[in-house]
Amino acid sequence: MSDGPLAPGSTIGILGGGQLGRMLATAGAALGFDVHVFEPEPDCPASRVAARAYCAPWDDAGAVEAFAARCDAVTYEFENVPLDTVAVAARVSQVRPGARSLELTQDRLTEKRFINQAGVATVPFADVTDRDDLGAAIARIGLPAVLKTRRFGYDGKGQAWIRQTGDAGAAWTAIGGKPAILEGAADFRRELSVVAARSVDGEVKAWPLSENVHGDGILERTTAPAPGVDAATQARALEIARAIGGGLGHVGVFAVELFDLGPDGLVVNEIAPRVHNTGHWTMDACGCGQFEQHMRAVAGWPLGDPSPHSACVMTNLIGKDALNWEQIAGDPAARLHLYGKRAVRAGRKMGHVNRLSPL
Amino acid sequence: MSDGPLAPGSTIGILGGGQLGRMLATAGAALGFDVHVFEPEPDCPASRVAARAYCAPWDDAGAVEAFAARCDAVTYEFENVPLDTVAVAARVSQVRPGARSLELTQDRLTEKRFINQAGVATVPFADVTDRDDLGAAIARIGLPAVLKTRRFGYDGKGQAWIRQTGDAGAAWTAIGGKPAILEGAADFRRELSVVAARSVDGEVKAWPLSENVHGDGILERTTAPAPGVDAATQARALEIARAIGGGLGHVGVFAVELFDLGPDGLVVNEIAPRVHNTGHWTMDACGCGQFEQHMRAVAGWPLGDPSPHSACVMTNLIGKDALNWEQIAGDPAARLHLYGKRAVRAGRKMGHVNRLSPL
Repeated sequence: MSDGPLAPGSTIGILGGGQLGRMLATAGAALGFDVHVFEPEPDCPASRVAARAYCAPWDDAGAVEAFAARCDAVTYEFENVPLDTVAVAARVSQVRPGARSLELTQDRLTEKRFINQAGVATVPFADVTDRDDLGAAIARIGLPAVLKTRRFGYDGKGQAWIRQTGDAGAAWTAIGGKPAILEGAADFRRELSVVAARSVDGEVKAWPLSENVHGDGILERTTAPAPGVDAATQARALEIARAIGGGLGHVGVFAVELFDLGPDGLVVNEIAPRVHNTGHWTMDACGCGQFEQHMRAVAGWPLGDPSPHSACVMTNLIGKDALNWEQIAGDPAARLHLYGKRAVRAGRKMGHVNRLSPL
Repeated sequence: MSDGPLAPGSTIGILGGGQLGRMLATAGAALGFDVHVFEPEPDCPASRVAARAYCAPWDDAGAVEAFAARCDAVTYEFENVPLDTVAVAARVSQVRPGARSLELTQDRLTEKRFINQAGVATVPFADVTDRDDLGAAIARIGLPAVLKTRRFGYDGKGQAWIRQTGDAGAAWTAIGGKPAILEGAADFRRELSVVAARSVDGEVKAWPLSENVHGDGILERTTAPAPGVDAATQARALEIARAIGGGLGHVGVFAVELFDLGPDGLVVNEIAPRVHNTGHWTMDACGCGQFEQHMRAVAGWPLGDPSPHSACVMTNLIGKDALNWEQIAGDPAARLHLYGKRAVRAGRKMGHVNRLSPL
């Protein structure tokens, strides 16, 4: 452990070995760090670019401790790493971001309460701890509304729309009858996100807002900088990032998904306390991309310059999209990124393509 | 082995595990390849970003064969890999570039003869197989001239200037009394280089000419695109790259170091049959950088677009320069690349910095 910035040659550990861990690992290596990866799944994408890979269950405290004890700092690539795992790592190393960023964002209800307490608007929401709460929640929020499990939802999983009162029972069943949150439908013009980083010193730097298009709950495309964003909206996005990053005491990159309500401004949909799919454009189009920026923050380094040198359209390669690699490889405008996943599965993020154009 | 392009998930092996191997490995991973590294030195920079690392002597044919047999294609990161090693690898895998690129460039004499045969000018040179040849060589080439060992020279090693006839004996001793080549001094305005790639199909794409400044025989700085280069000179550089790449039957990236003689045009100083320090600027400033481009060529993929989106000044971090990492990390204009070398030594390339500006 160290209070100052980590010198090159130090070891940074990543909990989680998917594509985010893989891109963090190579970005860390470019700064001269050794990167170790801990992931329960064998042969994970990040293991193949790491100086050392640990494969053990999250609850194998001995393995987690052995991993973390060799690291000068530990980070995580996704928000569903168990808090207990992070606590074990924190006994023997410094974990950045801290447990608070995980605690508050692993649960949609505590997350939305935190956002409002930070002075930032969300859609209306209500606590639905059990089935009996659902009627009152619908009465308060109105319909249509979306019922979401409080925990372990991602890419549209654990969600069900309620369009009329009679849908309530089916929705409750669809999400598995778990503690939930009912969220009002936002009448938004488009989905935006701000990806930002906060340093150990509390400095916050954000990339320009991006515009995001989802299909079946999975991000399909990001256009950045988002077209038609005025200076006041960009400034508001930075304020939101500062309020949320500061409120979390976050160290590293985080993303805030936003609904653009037009004249009614921006409301937060959700927070991701990590590098984010809507920030993948930054790795090719900006002075400092999100993966390098996160490793800088975790190392206690000053943040890099997020300014874009190019505009970018990022397209995810989902499932069989990745089988088109040969065509994409032949497109001179495409910057192809593949994650090294062994099996193509429907809905699985296999890679992405960045297409740059002059700003 | 495969005739078509290698699919993502294929394994590409790299002979040599220094910084060039390291940057090739991460570029290959971004395209979805597994990268294996073979290097006699333990704990080499590339081993820490490779899916698998082999540490054995070059002449351990069993180890080389075991490495290559697991690879769908094998490449090399530097030109002094023994030809016998490449021959062993070629028995069980496809090696790109082929042995011819190594054979012709491992020996300064055969290299310069090849360049002239390809229709490209060099400085005048003479064969100095032994001490007795030196007088006649001086008489033919004139002075000043530089005596260089035919083999195993790099970064200014194995070279001695002869400014007057009386220096000849000392120069012969200084280079170790090995078979040598005497080269006439070029009255050049500046040093340029063209870095290019040739695909399996014979397509050649080049990055813009860069201007290079050396100190003590080691590259210090590259400015790219080189200022003040007219279209005719850039076109001539591409012709030179085509002649040399085609003549070698090269597959992959190569660099041609040039002397700019002003109105007398360009002459070739030397060829590097690999990614090159004067191409490090491309990784941050171009659509496709040299490391990705090389892995594309080795995989039999179409070449990427080398067009720059930004201008760049690349500065090498040599020896103690790398101790300034904290200052460089705080410079928003600097893109820092460190190679993970454990020990700082005088003259050792520890990293480089790219500083981008609008084209």
